[in-house]
Amino acid sequence: MPKETFKATAVLQEGVKVDVQARNFHITIDEPPALGGTDAGMNPVEMLLGALGACQSIVARVYSQKFGVELEDFRVELEGDLDTDGFMNKSDVRRGYSDIRYTYHITSPSPEENIRALADFIARTCPVDDTISNPVNVVRKDLVIEKIIEQNI
Amino acid sequence: MPKETFKATAVLQEGVKVDVQARNFHITIDEPPALGGTDAGMNPVEMLLGALGACQSIVARVYSQKFGVELEDFRVELEGDLDTDGFMNKSDVRRGYSDIRYTYHITSPSPEENIRALADFIARTCPVDDTISNPVNVVRKDLVIEKIIEQNI
Repeated sequence: MPKETFKATAVLQEGVKVDVQARNFHITIDEPPALGGTDAGMNPVEMLLGALGACQSIVARVYSQKFGVELEDFRVELEGDLDTDGFMNKSDVRRGYSDIRYTYHITSPSPEENIRALADFIARTCPVDDTISNPVNVVRKDLVIEKIIEQNI
Repeated sequence: MPKETFKATAVLQEGVKVDVQARNFHITIDEPPALGGTDAGMNPVEMLLGALGACQSIVARVYSQKFGVELEDFRVELEGDLDTDGFMNKSDVRRGYSDIRYTYHITSPSPEENIRALADFIARTCPVDDTISNPVNVVRKDLVIEKIIEQNI
């Protein structure tokens, strides 16, 4: 079954801190004090860039041999432009990233043309790159409300 | 300056393990053994779902008061469909997620209509939701190749 369903859970903690879970793994996400957080972790838009870089790195490793590339070191530097007026509800600009740019730093003894072919291949093959570059059908499946009655004890 | 540039770095470790960095924070990303990894962390497509859930959670916290909602508990369960034949280069299907679904679990003493209004607002306001739902201009800025000469010592 090539179509797989991946899962994650986000649980809001105190303030804007979030415990992100996938299988048995946990990541703490937070915002800096300027954005109302306690700076206990990277924030969601940094995490998104990180997911893209991690995905590209894994594609590089998995396919390096096929392209005749020995990877001594592989690093991706990513940056994304985001107009925070959107999130602050101050303007009708798009809420998310308009542009994301990345630079590969590759240390290798292999022929340059092989390295360039691998680098071009990564962008075409990376699932996170495709997910961000192209539209995805993101929908709310359900909204479960548990009412509690406040009690004065 | 509302237009901000966020940054992250991904550094490939042994195998398919990746050290994701943003400011002073680190996250270890890996794949399960079936996908060639050592299962030292969640994988990039789980991380992407987690970034979406974290972002939604933070929007919920930041805007809950504006909607008259007291958040006792807030949790997002996310799932995404991905045809792994794409990444395996076995078919021309899209490489990334085709569909992502999420369910909010909200525990609150507040009126249900306020909670529903907040829930609807989250999707419209969350930067990561917009980034994934709509096309983003993702480009390679540079490819830096450091050649090394292999030496037999």
